[in-house]
Amino acid sequence: MNNTEYRIRGFKASSVTVGLKRDMGPDMALIFSDREATAAGVFTTNMVKAAPVLFSMEQIKKGRARAIIVNAGNANACTGDKGLENSRLTAEMAAEKLGIRVDEILVASTGVIGSQLDMNRVAKGVSDLTEGLSYDGIGGVAEAIMTTDTFPKISRSEGKAQDSPYRIIGIAKGAGMIMPNMATMLAFLLTDIRIELPELKAALSSSVDKTFNRITVDGETSTNDTVLVMANGIAGNRPLKADDYEVFKRGLEQVMDELSLMIVKDGEGATKVVYIKVKGASTGGDAITAARTVANSSLVKTAFYGQDPNWGRIIAALGRSGISMKQEDVSIWVDEVMIVEGGLGVGEDQEKKAAEKMKEREFSVTIDLNRGDYEDQVKTCDLTPEYISVNADYRT
Amino acid sequence: MNNTEYRIRGFKASSVTVGLKRDMGPDMALIFSDREATAAGVFTTNMVKAAPVLFSMEQIKKGRARAIIVNAGNANACTGDKGLENSRLTAEMAAEKLGIRVDEILVASTGVIGSQLDMNRVAKGVSDLTEGLSYDGIGGVAEAIMTTDTFPKISRSEGKAQDSPYRIIGIAKGAGMIMPNMATMLAFLLTDIRIELPELKAALSSSVDKTFNRITVDGETSTNDTVLVMANGIAGNRPLKADDYEVFKRGLEQVMDELSLMIVKDGEGATKVVYIKVKGASTGGDAITAARTVANSSLVKTAFYGQDPNWGRIIAALGRSGISMKQEDVSIWVDEVMIVEGGLGVGEDQEKKAAEKMKEREFSVTIDLNRGDYEDQVKTCDLTPEYISVNADYRT
Repeated sequence: MNNTEYRIRGFKASSVTVGLKRDMGPDMALIFSDREATAAGVFTTNMVKAAPVLFSMEQIKKGRARAIIVNAGNANACTGDKGLENSRLTAEMAAEKLGIRVDEILVASTGVIGSQLDMNRVAKGVSDLTEGLSYDGIGGVAEAIMTTDTFPKISRSEGKAQDSPYRIIGIAKGAGMIMPNMATMLAFLLTDIRIELPELKAALSSSVDKTFNRITVDGETSTNDTVLVMANGIAGNRPLKADDYEVFKRGLEQVMDELSLMIVKDGEGATKVVYIKVKGASTGGDAITAARTVANSSLVKTAFYGQDPNWGRIIAALGRSGISMKQEDVSIWVDEVMIVEGGLGVGEDQEKKAAEKMKEREFSVTIDLNRGDYEDQVKTCDLTPEYISVNADYRT
Repeated sequence: MNNTEYRIRGFKASSVTVGLKRDMGPDMALIFSDREATAAGVFTTNMVKAAPVLFSMEQIKKGRARAIIVNAGNANACTGDKGLENSRLTAEMAAEKLGIRVDEILVASTGVIGSQLDMNRVAKGVSDLTEGLSYDGIGGVAEAIMTTDTFPKISRSEGKAQDSPYRIIGIAKGAGMIMPNMATMLAFLLTDIRIELPELKAALSSSVDKTFNRITVDGETSTNDTVLVMANGIAGNRPLKADDYEVFKRGLEQVMDELSLMIVKDGEGATKVVYIKVKGASTGGDAITAARTVANSSLVKTAFYGQDPNWGRIIAALGRSGISMKQEDVSIWVDEVMIVEGGLGVGEDQEKKAAEKMKEREFSVTIDLNRGDYEDQVKTCDLTPEYISVNADYRT
């Protein structure tokens, strides 16, 4: 992780090892903005929300923040009143050390569900993090928030608003429990653009919908999903015009799209990324439902692992998805190789060609329902024996 | 398979090897009733229905049948008009050989999706099956319909109706693509009771709902699920009274319950059977939704394989299931060992005890939502590396 590459004006960061993770790697991180930033967040749709999610949902309501403090190794989920108290205590300790108000601090956690945080370790972490803050610390945050991730996820983009240049830096973690909507996924977006809160919220919401909500690893939705964006305004641009806003939104979406692709690539045990593209659906709802059902089918994902263009499993998944469809209307391609036309296989030669495509690390499956004009797509990965061993061993 | 043990008056059966399966075991079977039987069926809810399903759905409408002809190794699904024609042709060939009408024959298939049946092999099979019919042939049917099943599934029960003794014999296959509603599951129920069609239909429907629709292996629903029941009336009992009907229904349900347990035990790669029991739900719909969401969660099933009482994954699954719940109301047990009370873990000692229970081949997970009076349960299995290798290699 090249540390200067991910510098962004006015944001310091740090990461430390306090012993919350089993493997003893870095497990706490702090992001600190030199000045108050406009802030927005999107959180898990799971009815069961972790303590830091409940805490940060309240904090973010005012649309302003100075810092994000995060730990990995312990999700602080299903921890009751004490867990919520511990999220608050973490923020209080950070506020005191940083000399800012408690209501300027956001908290996030990821890791095992159901254990209380070791607050002695957290206190030590907060202290060390505050001392270690640096403009070159962003890369370290990406490493500290990893759990079963195998590589840190960071992305950036640059733009100009009213001739003032700005940057967008994105940091994320993923791995398992990844499913629309959202994931055991944490993502932090930092930008120095000056932007009003309603615009920031709109850009975040639109981008989440097109990126993080269009990926899946295992159909699970975590208790801890959190996406936070902070815009500190140091770019000093004049108020955004419509064009500037569009450019910013595209930049944000691009950063989040890159992060979401990294998350699928790094899905637990995954060896392949597959783009499930559905077109010709009767409604937008049918398009996304069809894509998600195929993308989450254990049998389909196992066939991806086996490099087997087993289109019968794809059609069977479509058939149970509840969408409007007729089998005899369906066509399917692997990349540009057609394997199904009018609901029937087009033959072994084509399947052999498709199997060749499936040897690649990335390929697409395109499904034309031939029922209407709606389309959508979801990125998924294959299901491998490694997924089982990662998750069977996770706590033991 | 003891062949005399599963004799039932008036039903002959046979099985042969014609080469439709990769492993060249027996792959076609015939069940033949000496006299016309009352018949009913339940079929897959998948929008994509295999040719034999479409064919038999039509055939069964009249409520009468003489024979069931079945093949394994090829599902005859996604095979279009030609597939439907081949199901009809199979029935026609069997009708001619058996000297009965085509409309007295039901057809079922299981195996790979998307290939046309080799009708030369089928023709040979029909001929050999007809010649091989025997009152001791029932056990062989259970073997011939296996695909990735590792053992044949057969069960029986006995009863008396108006002092006339009768039997119920059940034969099934399962393995993968098992999910409510139904499965890549075939089940044939044979009985010599004399029963009216509406009663037979009601008993079948009620029993399917309590048994086959309460199991899951992998959350997939096949294109070929078929449950057929034939009652040939040879027991000669007088018309059933209410009590007799109840006894028959319980007997049928017991046979189907035993078959459904065998199917879960033999789930692809499964090493454990787990009973997911939900109580205290606000509605019946919530109870079954909660049970199914937990029973189908890849993370929960992987934790079962790992013998890890990872209740956080169970609560997370409940939270995304869409049911009415409050985390702080939830209690969870493994067998009789409480691991969660009021949404919080009750401690490591209890988890260790629960982990001991999870070393067994069978255990239960009981979830009390404490929201109302509804309860339900689903049988599931663990998710293992073997599931992946079975399904990654299935066609290749």
